[in-house]
Amino acid sequence: MTETTPGTSRVVLLGLGDMGTAFARSWLSAGYPLTVWNRTASRSRPLAAEGAEVAADPAAAVAAGRLVVTCLLDDASVGSVLDGVDLTGRDLVDITTSTPGEARARAVWAAGRGARFVSGGVMAVPPMVGVPESGGYTFYSGSREAFAEHGAALSVPTGARFQGDDPGLAALLDVALLSAMDGMFAGLTHAFALTRRSGVPPARVAELLEGWLAAMLPAAGEFARRLESGDLTTGVASNLAMQAHGEKTLLRTAEEAGVSTELLLPYGELMERHVAAGGGDEDGAALVDRLLKAPA
Amino acid sequence: MTETTPGTSRVVLLGLGDMGTAFARSWLSAGYPLTVWNRTASRSRPLAAEGAEVAADPAAAVAAGRLVVTCLLDDASVGSVLDGVDLTGRDLVDITTSTPGEARARAVWAAGRGARFVSGGVMAVPPMVGVPESGGYTFYSGSREAFAEHGAALSVPTGARFQGDDPGLAALLDVALLSAMDGMFAGLTHAFALTRRSGVPPARVAELLEGWLAAMLPAAGEFARRLESGDLTTGVASNLAMQAHGEKTLLRTAEEAGVSTELLLPYGELMERHVAAGGGDEDGAALVDRLLKAPA
Repeated sequence: MTETTPGTSRVVLLGLGDMGTAFARSWLSAGYPLTVWNRTASRSRPLAAEGAEVAADPAAAVAAGRLVVTCLLDDASVGSVLDGVDLTGRDLVDITTSTPGEARARAVWAAGRGARFVSGGVMAVPPMVGVPESGGYTFYSGSREAFAEHGAALSVPTGARFQGDDPGLAALLDVALLSAMDGMFAGLTHAFALTRRSGVPPARVAELLEGWLAAMLPAAGEFARRLESGDLTTGVASNLAMQAHGEKTLLRTAEEAGVSTELLLPYGELMERHVAAGGGDEDGAALVDRLLKAPA
Repeated sequence: MTETTPGTSRVVLLGLGDMGTAFARSWLSAGYPLTVWNRTASRSRPLAAEGAEVAADPAAAVAAGRLVVTCLLDDASVGSVLDGVDLTGRDLVDITTSTPGEARARAVWAAGRGARFVSGGVMAVPPMVGVPESGGYTFYSGSREAFAEHGAALSVPTGARFQGDDPGLAALLDVALLSAMDGMFAGLTHAFALTRRSGVPPARVAELLEGWLAAMLPAAGEFARRLESGDLTTGVASNLAMQAHGEKTLLRTAEEAGVSTELLLPYGELMERHVAAGGGDEDGAALVDRLLKAPA
């Protein structure tokens, strides 16, 4: 049993996947009393050995403390796990990956059950949790009062960054960053496939990719400056007409190398549409608004 | 007129787009005698004022020096610009973006005309050329002897990295890195679109994106280790079944925000296919070989 630190109030955690387990361990290490529940009970046992109380069901877990953290598969799981559980006077902090709309609806749902609600979006993989120097952090938004009350506990697993009162904001930023990461991973996947039969060792390819993408990453700031100013044409280093033409060489290379073009095509097609619509002299930042549909 | 440095031999440059012009200026600044030609003659005039000789046609340019650098729209342009030009005894260094197959065919074509051939892939945007601290560099491959003879001149505009005798290698690495960059740019584009109507300033979004993608970039090295070892299942932080499930939240968020899912879908569909084929417990690196078609 880990000794708990006097004065640190209990954390209740529902959901012991890899992320939930990493959060649990960080609270136990920091001396927080912890009650856990997981649908598959075997995931609780190692934590029990490390000092966690294991609740028999979600209602018993929620009864054990004021701060209730959910880390489940998706928002629908949060609704079903807490279905019929008395949340009166509880502060529900939901770090399940959700959409902004789901987080906003969950906040209304929680308020209707007498609970304050904070939504969290974890910007870390489990090995980064409880390792402050990893730079992992979690976006939080929703009840400012509940966040203030539990800020110390919430800052234990990762850095905690409160973004505002809109419970959907943490989810929006979370999903935006995860979506950008998916794009980068798609690009890495294609690049490794292209070089797979070339005899160039993957470690060498990785080193080149990391250097090049790090050098190109400030393009994000350049996109932002153009989105803020609306100036899409002054001082463009490589305009969309040139990029769209260059894209054809990327596609021909994939075909030569026997690599599917599926991950490359959509960005090329988006550029082609923008050039066809007269935006060939514009910067790539122009594609942002082309992705927007009419407001719902 | 810039004074030329005694003993530095003449560079002939065909093609004065933004990249060619940047290369030209760097050679002039370093004191290299330079002869330029461009199809649209107006692009030559500022360089003439800075000390370049302007040739009336490609044949006259090529006659002026042994090192002939081509920086044109695509490989087909190289063939048409040099059609009928006597290349005997010349060293042709082609930094036009080409496919590996095109570069190999161009090397054979050059040899048939009595020229040595080096292919180059420029890993820089024009503002990085002639700025050593920018970290820009060019991959070169092909004739080792020709590269050795002209290495000093070729190291002036950007760093020069010779990759091997295969004239296709520089193009392969160039295209692999550009393809990965396209993926990253697609991800950035989607992320900015998601947050476009949220009230979060683009500069703030850019700062978050740059921090997160930089933190996730070491995934390239992790991909490489798995591709080299073939171990796709040990110690996976987030397996493809979980990632494919998470992807649904990214897609729902895009739909809520009125953002087209076109840039996100292909990577998600690739994950789904891999999970359906039984690879749900594997790392994302497993998708690399799924992109490979049967060898041509």
